[in-house]
Amino acid sequence: MAFDSIQTPAGKADQVLGGSVNYFSLAASFYAPIKVIGIVGEDFPIAHLEYLTTRNVDVSGVQIVKGKTFHWVGSYDTNMNEAKTLSTALNVFETFDPKLNAAHQDASYVFLANIDPVLQTSVLDQVKSPKLVACDSMNFWITGKPEELKKTLKRVDILSINEGEAFLLSGEKNLNKAATIIRTMGPSIIIIKRGEYGAMLFTPKGTFLASAFPVDFVKDPTGAGDSFAGAFMGYVAEAGLTRDMAQTDPDAFESILRRAVVAGCVMASFTVEDFSIERLKRLEASELVTRQTALMKMITV
Amino acid sequence: MAFDSIQTPAGKADQVLGGSVNYFSLAASFYAPIKVIGIVGEDFPIAHLEYLTTRNVDVSGVQIVKGKTFHWVGSYDTNMNEAKTLSTALNVFETFDPKLNAAHQDASYVFLANIDPVLQTSVLDQVKSPKLVACDSMNFWITGKPEELKKTLKRVDILSINEGEAFLLSGEKNLNKAATIIRTMGPSIIIIKRGEYGAMLFTPKGTFLASAFPVDFVKDPTGAGDSFAGAFMGYVAEAGLTRDMAQTDPDAFESILRRAVVAGCVMASFTVEDFSIERLKRLEASELVTRQTALMKMITV
Repeated sequence: MAFDSIQTPAGKADQVLGGSVNYFSLAASFYAPIKVIGIVGEDFPIAHLEYLTTRNVDVSGVQIVKGKTFHWVGSYDTNMNEAKTLSTALNVFETFDPKLNAAHQDASYVFLANIDPVLQTSVLDQVKSPKLVACDSMNFWITGKPEELKKTLKRVDILSINEGEAFLLSGEKNLNKAATIIRTMGPSIIIIKRGEYGAMLFTPKGTFLASAFPVDFVKDPTGAGDSFAGAFMGYVAEAGLTRDMAQTDPDAFESILRRAVVAGCVMASFTVEDFSIERLKRLEASELVTRQTALMKMITV
Repeated sequence: MAFDSIQTPAGKADQVLGGSVNYFSLAASFYAPIKVIGIVGEDFPIAHLEYLTTRNVDVSGVQIVKGKTFHWVGSYDTNMNEAKTLSTALNVFETFDPKLNAAHQDASYVFLANIDPVLQTSVLDQVKSPKLVACDSMNFWITGKPEELKKTLKRVDILSINEGEAFLLSGEKNLNKAATIIRTMGPSIIIIKRGEYGAMLFTPKGTFLASAFPVDFVKDPTGAGDSFAGAFMGYVAEAGLTRDMAQTDPDAFESILRRAVVAGCVMASFTVEDFSIERLKRLEASELVTRQTALMKMITV
């Protein structure tokens, strides 16, 4: 959970709600109930946590502690595919030690958002028997804590990262080869996010190329990847996907994953239409269905 | 028709065969017989023209004149999506005045490769009643001869350009809006090529998002767009597409265009696997079919 201050060619937003948890949980909530783990400072609006509750999101795992909430300041130039970090204030994140309650420990579907891989592993240690674990990471951890990240990856079914991160993690500039290398690190499923171009899904069965929905305008790409992941995980949870299905029902396994990636692309396309979580807050399920249908028409030969 | 000298992260090729006509005609020849119009100098290998003849390409429209063949020197850095032009020697192109013989004048399918729009119009003036006209262009003409290019576009059914060119031609940084603006200039069908990401097709019926085939290595992206266009035009010619079908059989019209774009993506994916036209020269029809089938599996949800 974070405050973001963002500048894009379309405008500016100061100290708005951001953070992976916010984007992810709002996106996922269209498909499945969500329990979030996080930390905020005393400056965080309680009203927002209450709002999440109305959206099927259990926020009992959000610690409110003395100090300030994490704050990211970033900007995008004309090429909206890459954010430039201007400053990062970890604030309360510096001492974050995720503690899972009984309900969290029983979680079937676990998404480890982009934090210190040591904390990702610590969360995973506390979950009793997850059916499916996905995780995200970023350049900062790939470079800074490679061994810790590799420990996490060994226990993960799905890794969702962007193109540049895949190159960095694998040491390989070709995406097929990068995915093959990353799969030897643990996750059998790799999702490579490609911004406005969509995403690639690598599974034991093959490759799926998902096109992004072509929006008419991009106000702010922040959170696109997190809301992609939220819709993806919500979709697979709702569909009841488990890692065992890769063996017991490989066709259904593949089909659910592909549909979940499309759901992720559709969700991300809404996120970028406004700053912060504004578009997700006013998103209607009927809009999701309409755009998903439109995207399916656009990718069918 | 040209000589290219190219440097890419994968290597170097000096004074090799290049030019839109070479890539286009070899690609198109898998689908339909081709007649090419062009000009070369006395330094051009006659053996290559003879080779084209064996590949279903009629080269009687290639003028061989005193002087040197067009020569392009370019390089690519790690981002293989954009070429850097180091030098361009127009040579015999400076006085090129395309003259169509009787067979050319009867052509049903016309592709105006990327040359001076004044010459594109002159070619079109000589064709009696084309069923379908497509054209390509580039930044140099969009900036240098905008009015002449607009005259050409008024008489064209299909424009095939890349992302950056679409932005420049339309003055719009969003592809949906760019395509809408360009369609008011004449062509009812716009293909926007996106390098390793694929292509977008805009038709009166809607948008088609085509993913590129993800190759294991890229040696040289030169000619990818031209071979895309060659396979596309060959495919629509073989399928018998005409502009009237947009009204008389809109579903078939749309379906042929979409399949032609996929054929273009498949062809381009071979071209980039080697320097010059080397990969296209040794390409087998069975490889085309195999990769087309593979790509279809990769884009089917």
